[in-house]
Amino acid sequence: MKKDFKNPFFRWENGVFVTVDQTKLPFKEEYIKLITLKDYYDAIKKMKVRGAPAIGIVACYGVLSTVYRNKKLKKAKRESLKSIEKLKNARPTAVNIFNLLEKMKVIIENFNGNDYLLFRRKLEDFCEKTYKYEVYTCDRMADYGYRLIKNGMNVLTHCNTGMLATSGIGTALGVILRAFQKGVKFHLFIPETRPLLQGGRLTVFEAEKFKIPYTLITDNTRGYLFSRNKIDITFVGADRIALNGDTANKIGTCESAILSYHFKKPFYVVAPTTTFDGNITDGDKIIIEERKKEEVLSINGKRISIAKNVFNPAFDITPSKYITGIITEKGIIKPEKGCIKNIL
Amino acid sequence: MKKDFKNPFFRWENGVFVTVDQTKLPFKEEYIKLITLKDYYDAIKKMKVRGAPAIGIVACYGVLSTVYRNKKLKKAKRESLKSIEKLKNARPTAVNIFNLLEKMKVIIENFNGNDYLLFRRKLEDFCEKTYKYEVYTCDRMADYGYRLIKNGMNVLTHCNTGMLATSGIGTALGVILRAFQKGVKFHLFIPETRPLLQGGRLTVFEAEKFKIPYTLITDNTRGYLFSRNKIDITFVGADRIALNGDTANKIGTCESAILSYHFKKPFYVVAPTTTFDGNITDGDKIIIEERKKEEVLSINGKRISIAKNVFNPAFDITPSKYITGIITEKGIIKPEKGCIKNIL
Repeated sequence: MKKDFKNPFFRWENGVFVTVDQTKLPFKEEYIKLITLKDYYDAIKKMKVRGAPAIGIVACYGVLSTVYRNKKLKKAKRESLKSIEKLKNARPTAVNIFNLLEKMKVIIENFNGNDYLLFRRKLEDFCEKTYKYEVYTCDRMADYGYRLIKNGMNVLTHCNTGMLATSGIGTALGVILRAFQKGVKFHLFIPETRPLLQGGRLTVFEAEKFKIPYTLITDNTRGYLFSRNKIDITFVGADRIALNGDTANKIGTCESAILSYHFKKPFYVVAPTTTFDGNITDGDKIIIEERKKEEVLSINGKRISIAKNVFNPAFDITPSKYITGIITEKGIIKPEKGCIKNIL
Repeated sequence: MKKDFKNPFFRWENGVFVTVDQTKLPFKEEYIKLITLKDYYDAIKKMKVRGAPAIGIVACYGVLSTVYRNKKLKKAKRESLKSIEKLKNARPTAVNIFNLLEKMKVIIENFNGNDYLLFRRKLEDFCEKTYKYEVYTCDRMADYGYRLIKNGMNVLTHCNTGMLATSGIGTALGVILRAFQKGVKFHLFIPETRPLLQGGRLTVFEAEKFKIPYTLITDNTRGYLFSRNKIDITFVGADRIALNGDTANKIGTCESAILSYHFKKPFYVVAPTTTFDGNITDGDKIIIEERKKEEVLSINGKRISIAKNVFNPAFDITPSKYITGIITEKGIIKPEKGCIKNIL
C-alpha cells in the first residue's frame, strides 16, 4: 500500500454521498448512497458511518446535499439551516460534528449574494476542505505517533480508528498502520469492543487488509495481558477532549487507561485539534450518549440475554491523569490545560 | 424463596444424571440426561454444565454412572478408573474436579470386597456426600459473606456463580442472594462476561428468578462505573487458588480486581476450601485453559468477526495482592500462605 492511498470508504459523487454500511462489515462490503436528509441522519444515528472525524464529514455533506436538492437560493438557505439543527442531534458526544456544523451555519447566514451556484460552491468548498483537512491531520498524527512504537512491542488499541473512522489513514490506527509501513516489528492486540464490536468487525478488517500482525481478544482479556506484561503501549481515538485533557471515547477506553496507568505503561490519545472542546473545562461536563439496550441484548438481531435492565453508555470519560500524551496534527502534547490552549 | 430451597438444576435419578443444558439458557430450559461417559465428558467440555463446584459434582457422578453400566465388579472397577482419567481432562483449570476424582480413585483402588453392590454403594455415598457438602459450604460462605454488603451499596460480580454453578445456593452469587434474602438494599451490576456470556445469560437469569435488583453491563463498562464511584464491592468465584492466594477464575476477573485495587474498593473471592490447590505455590503454576477461537468469533453460531488470530483463555490469574479476602466455608481469610495453610 502506498502512503498516499485514497480512502475508499467515503466519496461525494454528483450531489450524493457514497459510503460503506459499517453495520454490515466485514461480511458484506455494501455501499450505500445517502440522498435525503433522513439518509444522512440515519447513517450517523444507526452507526452505518461512525468515528468522530467520519461523522463530522458526513454531516457536512448532509447539509450540502440539502442545497443540492433545493435549487432556489432562499429555500436552500432555509433548508440547509434546518438540516444543521437535525444533524447536530444525531450523536451527542463527538464535538467536531457540532463545530463543523456551526461553521457551516456561519457561512450560510453570512452569504449575502443572490447566486445559488455560488452559495453551493462555498459550502462545497468547505466540505472538500474539511475532508482534505482530515486526510492531512491523520497523516501528521501518524508521523508524530509512529515513532513511539518500537520493535518488539505489543500494542493495544480500542474500537476502530482507522480508515473507516476518518477520511484519512486514521487516528490511533493510523499511527499503528504508519509504524507497520515504516517496517517496525510489533504485534497489535485488538479488543472486540462490545457492544457493537467495532474492534472485532472493523479493526480486524483493516488489520487483515493491510496485513498488520494482530490478535483479536475479548475486552475481558486486557487485564490478564497487562498483568502478564504483554502490553507495552496503547493508542486510542477520541470523540471529545475537554480543556483539562479529560477524554470521551468509546466505552471501555477508560478501563484500558486505568490498566495502563496501574502497570506504568504509556497510554496515548490520537486526535486532531478539532476534537478539543474549548467550551468544556473537564470531562464531567461532557454529555455521554446512552444508546438503546437492544445493542447489548442482541447480536446480529439474535437475542443473547433476557435482561430487563441494561446500562449502555456509548462512551466513557478517561480522566487526564491516566493519559500519557495526546497526539495531534500539531505535535504530541501533555493532557493539560496550558498545553491544550496553546495549540487551539 | 425459602432458605432451604433445593437446587433444581442437578439431580441423580436411577443411575442417570439430569441437568439443564446451560448453553441453551436462558431461552430454553432444556434438561439433558447424562448416560454414557461421552455424555458426561461433553457436558463438561462443552460447558453444558460449568462452574468449578458443579463440574466437580458432575464428574463424580460420571464415574459412578460407569459403575451403574458395568454390573460385574472387576469390569466396574476397571471402567471407572478409566473414566476418571478421561474426565480429569475435560477442563484443566478447576482443581476440585481433580481432587474429587483422585479421592474416588483411592476408594476404587482400596475396595477389596467381592460385592458389586457394596462397591457401588461406597461410590454413591461419596457422590452424595460431595453434593451435600457443596450445599453446606455454599450456605456457610453465604452466611459469612453477606454481612459485607451494606444498604445502598453497588455490588459487582463476574461470570455466573449461583445455583447453576454449584449444587448449593452458589459461591459469589450465593453471598449476594443471601444478602438480598436478608433484606439488604443493594444494586447488582452484572458484566455479560464475554465470550460465553455467562453473566448476561445465566446470572441475569438467576437475578430475574430471585428478583435481585440488577443492571446488565458490557464488560467494557466496569472501568467507567469504578471511575464514577459506582462500584462499592466485588464478589467473584474461583476455579483454583494457589497457596499464596493467587486465584484462577473466569477471564476478566483479574481486570475487575485491578480496578477494585486502583479505586481502593474491596474485592472478595468466594470459594470453598476444595478450591485451594495445596500443591501449587503461586498463580504462575496454574494451567490456564485456552479454548477454541470459535467461541470469540461467533455468537449463537453466527459469525461476528473474520479474525484469523484469536487468543481465548478461559480464565485468568488474579494476583493475591488485589484480593481483599477469600470467603470460605471456614470463615473469611486473607489471601496469604499462612492463613490458607491454616484452614486446609
